[in-house]
Amino acid sequence: MPGVPPAQYGYFGPAGTFTHQALRTLPAQHGEPVPFATVGQGLQAVRDGEVTAVLVPIENSVEGGVTATLDNLTYGDPLVITREVLLPVQFTLFGRPGTALRDVRQVLTHPHAAAQCRGWLAAHLPGATVTEGGSTAAAAAEVADPGSRFDAAICAQVAGELYRLAPLATGIADNPDAVTRFVLVSRPGPVAPPTGADKTTLVIFMREDHPGALLEILEQFASRGVNLCRIESRPTKRTLGDYCFSVDAEGHLDDARLAEALMGLHRVCADVVFLGSYPRADQQRPVIRVGTTNADYAAAASWFRRLHG
Amino acid sequence: MPGVPPAQYGYFGPAGTFTHQALRTLPAQHGEPVPFATVGQGLQAVRDGEVTAVLVPIENSVEGGVTATLDNLTYGDPLVITREVLLPVQFTLFGRPGTALRDVRQVLTHPHAAAQCRGWLAAHLPGATVTEGGSTAAAAAEVADPGSRFDAAICAQVAGELYRLAPLATGIADNPDAVTRFVLVSRPGPVAPPTGADKTTLVIFMREDHPGALLEILEQFASRGVNLCRIESRPTKRTLGDYCFSVDAEGHLDDARLAEALMGLHRVCADVVFLGSYPRADQQRPVIRVGTTNADYAAAASWFRRLHG
Amino acid sequence: MPGVPPAQYGYFGPAGTFTHQALRTLPAQHGEPVPFATVGQGLQAVRDGEVTAVLVPIENSVEGGVTATLDNLTYGDPLVITREVLLPVQFTLFGRPGTALRDVRQVLTHPHAAAQCRGWLAAHLPGATVTEGGSTAAAAAEVADPGSRFDAAICAQVAGELYRLAPLATGIADNPDAVTRFVLVSRPGPVAPPTGADKTTLVIFMREDHPGALLEILEQFASRGVNLCRIESRPTKRTLGDYCFSVDAEGHLDDARLAEALMGLHRVCADVVFLGSYPRADQQRPVIRVGTTNADYAAAASWFRRLHG
Amino acid sequence: MPGVPPAQYGYFGPAGTFTHQALRTLPAQHGEPVPFATVGQGLQAVRDGEVTAVLVPIENSVEGGVTATLDNLTYGDPLVITREVLLPVQFTLFGRPGTALRDVRQVLTHPHAAAQCRGWLAAHLPGATVTEGGSTAAAAAEVADPGSRFDAAICAQVAGELYRLAPLATGIADNPDAVTRFVLVSRPGPVAPPTGADKTTLVIFMREDHPGALLEILEQFASRGVNLCRIESRPTKRTLGDYCFSVDAEGHLDDARLAEALMGLHRVCADVVFLGSYPRADQQRPVIRVGTTNADYAAAASWFRRLHG
Repeated sequence: MPGVPPAQYGYFGPAGTFTHQALRTLPAQHGEPVPFATVGQGLQAVRDGEVTAVLVPIENSVEGGVTATLDNLTYGDPLVITREVLLPVQFTLFGRPGTALRDVRQVLTHPHAAAQCRGWLAAHLPGATVTEGGSTAAAAAEVADPGSRFDAAICAQVAGELYRLAPLATGIADNPDAVTRFVLVSRPGPVAPPTGADKTTLVIFMREDHPGALLEILEQFASRGVNLCRIESRPTKRTLGDYCFSVDAEGHLDDARLAEALMGLHRVCADVVFLGSYPRADQQRPVIRVGTTNADYAAAASWFRRLHG
Repeated sequence: MPGVPPAQYGYFGPAGTFTHQALRTLPAQHGEPVPFATVGQGLQAVRDGEVTAVLVPIENSVEGGVTATLDNLTYGDPLVITREVLLPVQFTLFGRPGTALRDVRQVLTHPHAAAQCRGWLAAHLPGATVTEGGSTAAAAAEVADPGSRFDAAICAQVAGELYRLAPLATGIADNPDAVTRFVLVSRPGPVAPPTGADKTTLVIFMREDHPGALLEILEQFASRGVNLCRIESRPTKRTLGDYCFSVDAEGHLDDARLAEALMGLHRVCADVVFLGSYPRADQQRPVIRVGTTNADYAAAASWFRRLHG
Repeated sequence: MPGVPPAQYGYFGPAGTFTHQALRTLPAQHGEPVPFATVGQGLQAVRDGEVTAVLVPIENSVEGGVTATLDNLTYGDPLVITREVLLPVQFTLFGRPGTALRDVRQVLTHPHAAAQCRGWLAAHLPGATVTEGGSTAAAAAEVADPGSRFDAAICAQVAGELYRLAPLATGIADNPDAVTRFVLVSRPGPVAPPTGADKTTLVIFMREDHPGALLEILEQFASRGVNLCRIESRPTKRTLGDYCFSVDAEGHLDDARLAEALMGLHRVCADVVFLGSYPRADQQRPVIRVGTTNADYAAAASWFRRLHG
Repeated sequence: MPGVPPAQYGYFGPAGTFTHQALRTLPAQHGEPVPFATVGQGLQAVRDGEVTAVLVPIENSVEGGVTATLDNLTYGDPLVITREVLLPVQFTLFGRPGTALRDVRQVLTHPHAAAQCRGWLAAHLPGATVTEGGSTAAAAAEVADPGSRFDAAICAQVAGELYRLAPLATGIADNPDAVTRFVLVSRPGPVAPPTGADKTTLVIFMREDHPGALLEILEQFASRGVNLCRIESRPTKRTLGDYCFSVDAEGHLDDARLAEALMGLHRVCADVVFLGSYPRADQQRPVIRVGTTNADYAAAASWFRRLHG
């Protein structure tokens, strides 16, 4: 499109992280993607216009929500999610070329990776010492140094390739089904049209922390036939016991049932932060309850107008 | 108003009934009001254009709903309620002029009146015989006949006056607080603007008689902060155990919360019959829940439009 | 059973009514059943020990609830339902023996019967005059009198047979599926064991007429997986707009889910009137929601006891 | 108490952490409390009988839930919470004795502490370099070393005192109201009696991840008048989008309303993990809804028993 500046993406780095690997599943972008040392720095770079969008982790099937991402999107200047990526978390043990599995004595990795591979390590490298460092990508970089005292790193495939290491064992996570969900975040702009399999992310602050407020919020969705695929409470940072709710609702801003639920929330809640309507990575279409299609909404509005006589 | 034909009203007669008495609380109409022998005949006369509107009973605080009225409005050609009247049901014992209470031996009245004055009759006229006839107004007419074998009638004030009888005892109902509610019914036309203390009458048919359908219907109101002041189940006349619900909801078609509830019902129900938005006779204004005013609805719609970027 | 006095039943008469006909579907009783002129007299006779039980109508699929029955059971001294009978309402036109259909000029019947056969009468006896009297059975008796000015009566099969009339046309109701439900009412005593297809009848008075009270009541049932097969509002007779709810719930006092719902109602309501657990006439077994069987309740109680350590 | 072995407590260490400081608010225990390097090691030591109980953080008003604690209690062998402690998170800047605030160039602390004091540091030590290390207590230890290159540590009061440092500035957190909640965890045993201001902690696994399951769970509490003071979703670690819910409910195992809610959850959920009933640190008594006291439950049970006749 002439006149439209090409997109440049950032990601939660350094190079070789799982986020970096997830970024590769997106269509080609202009220029090299920019790594950011923290989620906060990456999101700020989008706000400042340094990059068009940034890919950050938001949730892991084993560890749960990434609070740095959730809180920054909630409390920082407005940003929206435009896309999500699901990536199976597959850990590989990489060594310097020439190293055999049986020779590995010193392993370096990130604490999360160590925790998720504990069973495999106990079974296959019972004698090895595992040291926990700052990131799996940094561990790969360290191992790549011929002078390192570490023989191997547990890291993402992309990190091993980046540092030209040799895979010694793949798929070594104790839970082979672990998945991390990443979101591509941009400055607010026109919302892309619905695909039919969409999600909308919101943060909902209750008007007061009265008992039953969460029930009331859920009923705003339920009474319109909108299902939630994620709900997570987060502290409002004001006082212990005061929570807001980060939710992913099935559907798009252009779905009448979701529109009505959103307006309902706006009326009964202290605040509703809209964080984007975007296609689901799993392309799963919602089961639509009888009476909640856009056509049903249009028919009801048309009937209502006729009542006035 | 030039060009507008003056209204002529009908009522559930004959002359002298409580409905007749209720009619007198309405502003003056053109011409004599027309009595109809049955509720059904009165409502049909409105449909046929013979009268502008008809006043019929719909509910009594002791006897419950008037099924002839409820069912005719539900299943007949469209009509709407434009006004309601509440009338305390005060029974008076009327005799022919010159009759003393102690001389009353034979009392004539309608079975409902006899039932509602049973205690008073036992206490004050223990020796009298009570005969049940077709209406309290007809009883008054009969007693007015000098040749009648009846000494007194239990009837409405208006009937006693009409037949120039003498009141022997007033306020003789065992339940002094009994009230009957009447509705003025017209052909559908432009709905009068809200007064701030309005009611809307509906009949709701569930999509299928599934367990929980009534709960779902109530939630359509509750989730919008609309209270119900009456709910009555009526058979759909199809099969035993299949009901529709006649309800009075607080509010007017022009209240956004009621509008949304109505459209919600239209979407989830098999059918919704609109029977009018009209001022409450008791002028009681609703308690409006936080977030449900028209201004709240407008603010939410305006917020929503901005989300699209 | 030696020592147990044999049951004698009463019914809402006179002989030849539909209630009489319904009574014949019950097992043989001792002695002749006793007709009562009104529902109230029949129920009082049970309270006074004159009869063991009385059969009265409670609901009709076209006309709705029988308020005399509902209110007497609610406000009178305690009685319970021990059985229900469903009877298709089949109207027959009976004439004096020797009368042909084409000769019928004067028809006598009860107003409900006239209303329910209006279409048939218009089609088949357009020239006949229909007079409304006190009961279909009385109409049959009148027609049986050779000196009567009436040629035919619309009544129940049993009435025609009783008065030795000849059927001129059968199944003449406009709605061929109309059904009346009758209940057999006794003084309170041990509740018969569950059959697996039972109903429990209750009258529920809300603690105060607060908006949402009905929703709260329905949730007491719904949260335990108990479905309602009938719900009817009745005035409390105190003030207009104050209702109690007559309900039939699926299940028996011995079903743990119903027991918990009943106790829940007792706690949140002003009053709960228990009107019996008894077998369903249609023998339809409820769909039991996961987690609500007696075994589930027992397992939960056993788990809970272990928590205490 | 003779014969009862004295309690020895562990805590999430090392010495000088906020957990250590929170432990000091508990009554004196036998022997020195034992620090554990990780929450997991501390909880395992309780399971193994090495210590009687361990104090671990579970929630922070700014950072949210402590997932290591939540997940270990959920998925590990049974443990229960017997007590909670709330501790305001007050950060102090400690220096070696003799250091003046204006001389501070190098600050060492834990990343959470750095994040929570960012504003104060920018305002009062704009030229200082902040380095993030493993724990605030370790930072204090490092600064206490006369040969350290760090001039000051941000840490808890207890850590500064332990290492005989001098306070340079107190209350330096940007959010002065931050509070951390700690729980004392033991092996399951008899539950202590209610105090009237109690909490019960549960983890709830839904039977299947069906839409509306959370609503159903909340209704199990709401229908019994039990309020929740915390609800947090956690991944079940099986598949992305599959959550369990960690909740704190108002009340004690001996409160009939909570007992019924718990049994209700047991029936409708796949699993309910009981993590203890214990006194609230804030001693706040619940608002008890009409009809939900133990006396109300007893009255309902007694009424129900009489129904059987």
